[in-house]
Order: sequence, then structure tokens, then C-alpha cells
Amino acid sequence: MKQFYSNISTQFKSILSSLVEGQKKVAVIGHMRPDGDCIGSTVAMVRLLRSQGVQAIGVNQDVVPDNLKSFLGDTPFITASEFENQDHVAITVDCADVKRIGKAMNELFPKIFLNIDHHISNKNYAQHNIVIGTASATTEILTGLALDLELAIDATSAQALYVGIATDTGQFCYSSTTKETFEMVQSLLECGANPAAAANDLYENESYARIQLIQAFLASLEMHLDNRVCVGTVTDAMYKQTGATIDDADGLVDYARSIKGVEIGVLVEERSGAIKGSLRSKDPKYRVDQIAQVFGGGGHACAAGLNVSDASIETFKPKLLSEITNQLTKIHSA
Amino acid sequence: MKQFYSNISTQFKSILSSLVEGQKKVAVIGHMRPDGDCIGSTVAMVRLLRSQGVQAIGVNQDVVPDNLKSFLGDTPFITASEFENQDHVAITVDCADVKRIGKAMNELFPKIFLNIDHHISNKNYAQHNIVIGTASATTEILTGLALDLELAIDATSAQALYVGIATDTGQFCYSSTTKETFEMVQSLLECGANPAAAANDLYENESYARIQLIQAFLASLEMHLDNRVCVGTVTDAMYKQTGATIDDADGLVDYARSIKGVEIGVLVEERSGAIKGSLRSKDPKYRVDQIAQVFGGGGHACAAGLNVSDASIETFKPKLLSEITNQLTKIHSA
Repeated sequence: MKQFYSNISTQFKSILSSLVEGQKKVAVIGHMRPDGDCIGSTVAMVRLLRSQGVQAIGVNQDVVPDNLKSFLGDTPFITASEFENQDHVAITVDCADVKRIGKAMNELFPKIFLNIDHHISNKNYAQHNIVIGTASATTEILTGLALDLELAIDATSAQALYVGIATDTGQFCYSSTTKETFEMVQSLLECGANPAAAANDLYENESYARIQLIQAFLASLEMHLDNRVCVGTVTDAMYKQTGATIDDADGLVDYARSIKGVEIGVLVEERSGAIKGSLRSKDPKYRVDQIAQVFGGGGHACAAGLNVSDASIETFKPKLLSEITNQLTKIHSA
Repeated sequence: MKQFYSNISTQFKSILSSLVEGQKKVAVIGHMRPDGDCIGSTVAMVRLLRSQGVQAIGVNQDVVPDNLKSFLGDTPFITASEFENQDHVAITVDCADVKRIGKAMNELFPKIFLNIDHHISNKNYAQHNIVIGTASATTEILTGLALDLELAIDATSAQALYVGIATDTGQFCYSSTTKETFEMVQSLLECGANPAAAANDLYENESYARIQLIQAFLASLEMHLDNRVCVGTVTDAMYKQTGATIDDADGLVDYARSIKGVEIGVLVEERSGAIKGSLRSKDPKYRVDQIAQVFGGGGHACAAGLNVSDASIETFKPKLLSEITNQLTKIHSA
């Protein structure tokens, strides 16, 4: 039997045993504004624990987005305000920093028992830390552990794990996608995961407001620096006009980057007097995190963000373009 | 060793042997307006034949789209006008009907030696026909055959086969995606396929004109029939204004369908005095092919199209909406 994570799986097995033997109650906690990998990990971890006889429940500070609700199935899952702590032990999933679970959850759980995550920046803040930075998703880690230990994966868990991997790899488009990813996904399909049903729930539930926001954003696109930089904006007025929420702006910046010849795509969002900037590059050599750092932001070489208070699009955009120009000049002359 | 298509692989092996022993020259031919599966199949088939010592070349009536050019590698590949027939034997890939290779190719090759395809509607028009309707892509068939027969798959072939599967499954979103699909993809990664590089070439090369066309299309969206139908239009004026081509309208209709609550998404395109309609439903029960048939079109239960000459958007749209109303009334009262 192939082992994906032999030593770590042994460690996970003994952690599981300690929970079973100690008759612990467990709260499985994901990050604020939960995404597919967060919900998928929470659902799968709760079900895995319950299959071993552990009383486990999923808890999140925020509500589950509409397009992810179907993946909960009959998994016990509540928000922080509904939660009554009865000496629950906390397991976090997909949280690089314990602050990511949100203030309400931090107050409920000052100590974390187990931290399972795939972010290389993870701060190992728990008593036990299972952090695998090479995994494409936290759900990929959980899939590997479950397969290694031959734990039963029911159809709801399989679908939840699939959704986490599919969304965190951008439908298998990101460089984190490996042959192990596909190998695990194959096993998930054997356990009942259904890629077409997942895609339908994930991608065929757009709000009309979001479609209108995409339209307004595309209409705002401007090409700069010999068409190497594409900048789009989202204004307070656009939110008002379309009825879209800030979550609806997720992913808009990808349209700016997707254009042929564009090296860096940019989204500048107005948020009641403040500015949120998102930068995406096609190649890590552009180090957009360094550009974001100039404005107190940060991130990765290909994807970074920043927040500036007391600024308007009109005043901020020229400053940002100037820093992008500096960076491109530096990179291209290197 | 697992066999994907045991009997068919044996048949394919003997066909290959006959080409090798007969010292045949082979033209591998795909359909007009080639897509990822067509180009991927052509590239992989040419390379597979050449690895067996067969003089093979890829030929297509049309040019390869920009976003697929990188997948050719050093594969011999030409368009019909450059082709000199020297008693070449013809193998078609991804063509349900022999007419799909185009008039120029039909004239060059009145007879087809081998037809490899995954469309259930395939007409078995060749001397040998390998048609597997359950396969997600023609490249999936070729992958399975190569793995079954342990034929060498070089990195260029692996990437070409991957691209065919990835594009024909909509990045593993369509219901044709099975565990065998993922199993084969895993093998392709072992042979050198790179999903992130493929995604970059496929999806990060949009023309600015296409982005503008998407914008104009989204601005045209109208909700009908209690928001169960979303209709968008593309006019001659939009093509002129954006500089987009008719190929740039591919996939626009998916935005109309993706909206929450929408049962049928529609694109009505104006093409110099004629109308092209595209219909997409979320559920096969809506049988959009039956709606298309009313106007002389056809297709599948979830995806159908039609062409009407001597019509305008203004005159055609009410007629189409009326037929959609009839169909939805029929389905919902059933």
C-alpha cells in the first residue's frame, strides 16, 4: 500500500488515538470568510473524527458562502455565536496563523490542540502541528492521511475533500498541482466524489450582481506601460449600482492578468475612503510582493495585496503605477 | 498491468503493425477550427507513429489557434495548402463525421484508413474505427491505448494529451470526467505533462479584443421568464467596435448559464444578416436540443446551437423566447 506521508500519518494516528481514548469533544475550526478548502477540510475532519467515535463539530466565525453550502451534507456545523464550549479541544484546518480563525473563536479557544495546514508560512501555533507546505490544499493533506491510515472516506467526505483540492488548485491549474494530487483525486472518485456535481454547485451559482460587477470592472480596464500592465478598478459607486458585495470582487484581477502580453494585472478597489490593491503576475520573477510591500502590503511572488487608508483611486493609482514601473525596469534590466 | 481498453488496444496494435510493416506514410488529420483535443490528438498520434518508425505528419485545413501553438513542439504539422500527398494514408482524430476535416482535406483524402474519436454520434466512416463514446476526449482514448500497449510517451506528447483532456472536460468540470480520466492524467504527469504550464498557455493569452467583447456581452444580458432564462447578444457592431473575431464569442454563453436560478443560458449572435444561437442548460431535462431543432439546429440535451439566415436579433429573439417558454412549461408541468 502506497504511503503519501508515512511518518506524519503515524503521528496523526497517535493524535487520533489520544482523542478517542481521552473521550474528547472536538471543535474543528477553519478561517474567517471560509473558502472551498476551508469548508472541505472542516467537513472531512469532523466526519473522520466522528467515524472514530469522537464527538466532533465544525465551527466557523462566519457563515458558509452559498456556493459551498451543499458540501456540508449532514455534517454538524455551526457559527461561533451558536457554539457552547463544553471543554472542547480545538483543531484548526487551513489556518496559517491562529488569528485567521477570528476574534470570537480566539476568545473561545485560547489554546489549539492540533493545527493542520498547507501554507508554508504557517506559524506552528498548536500543541501538535501537521504542516505540509508542498500539498496543494489542506484537503490534500487530509486525503493523504486518510488513505495512508485506511480510514473510511464516505461520499460526503470524498466530495468535500475533492472540492477543497479543486478550488485551491484553481481546477488543477496552479503549479501546486502534482501527480500525487491526481492520484488522490482518483481515490476520492472511488469513494464517491463527483467532479461535475461539484463544478455545478461551485461555478453555476453566480449572483446577477456579481456578473454586473464583472461587467463594470472589465469596462474600467486600462492598459499601461506598453500593454505590460492592465489595471481595473472597482468603485463604491459600482458596488452600490450593482448590489454586489466585496466578496464578489474575488478573482476579478485574474481577468486583468489573463490578457496576452500583460505581465502584471492589477485591481484597485475603493472601500469607503480606503483602498485595497491586488496584484497578480504571470511569472514569479516580477515579485509583486515587493511592490505591495512599498505600501505596507505583502504576499507571494505572483499574488500580493495591500490596504491603504485615507486614499482615493485617483491619488493612489499613479503612485502604484510608478512603483510597478520601477519594479519592471529593475526586472527587465537585470 | 491495468488495461483501459484491452480488446481495442489489441486491435490498435495490429493496425499500427500493418502501418509499420507496409512502410506507410501517414497524414494525421483533425477537424476544422481545431481545439485543444484536436491539436492534442494530432500531435500525440503523429509522435506515437514516428516513435514506431512510421513517417507521419499532422495536417489541418485551418491554422492552429495562438493559445495552442506552443503544444505542437517539434511535431511535423502543416496546413492543407502546404500538403503534398505522396500516397499518404489518412488517420482522422476527434472527427465525428468525415466532413469535419473540411472540403480541402476531403478532396485530398477520399478514403480514411483509421478514425479515432470519442463522439457517440461518430459515423464510423473509415476502414478501421476506434470510437469510444464514454471517453472524455479523443486524447483520453490515445492515452489509454498508449498506456495499455506500453508505448513510449515523450514529454511533448504527454503535454499534448493532457491539454486535450483538460480542455475537453472543461478543466475536469464536465460529467465525462471519470476516475479513469484522473488515473490517465496521473500517468501523463509521470511522463512530463505540466498542468500549470498548460493552463498558462491556454488561459493567460486572451486578446484585449475578447475581454472587451465579454464586457459588451455581459452588458447586454437580460433576464426573462422569472429569471429562469438569461439571454445575451453579440452584434455586428460589437465585433466592429472591439475588433474581436467570431472565435472570441466561444464560451460567452456560459456566463449567461452560470447565474444562480438560471435554467437556460442563451447567446444570440448577429453575423452579417444571419443569426447564430447557442443554448446551454444546467440540467439535461431541459433538452435544449429540442428547442434548437425548431429552428433547424441541434446538439445535446445541455448544449445546442442553431443558425438562421435572413434574420435580425430583434425579430429572432422573441421567437426563440417563445419556444423556450413552451419547452419550460412542458418540462415543469411534466
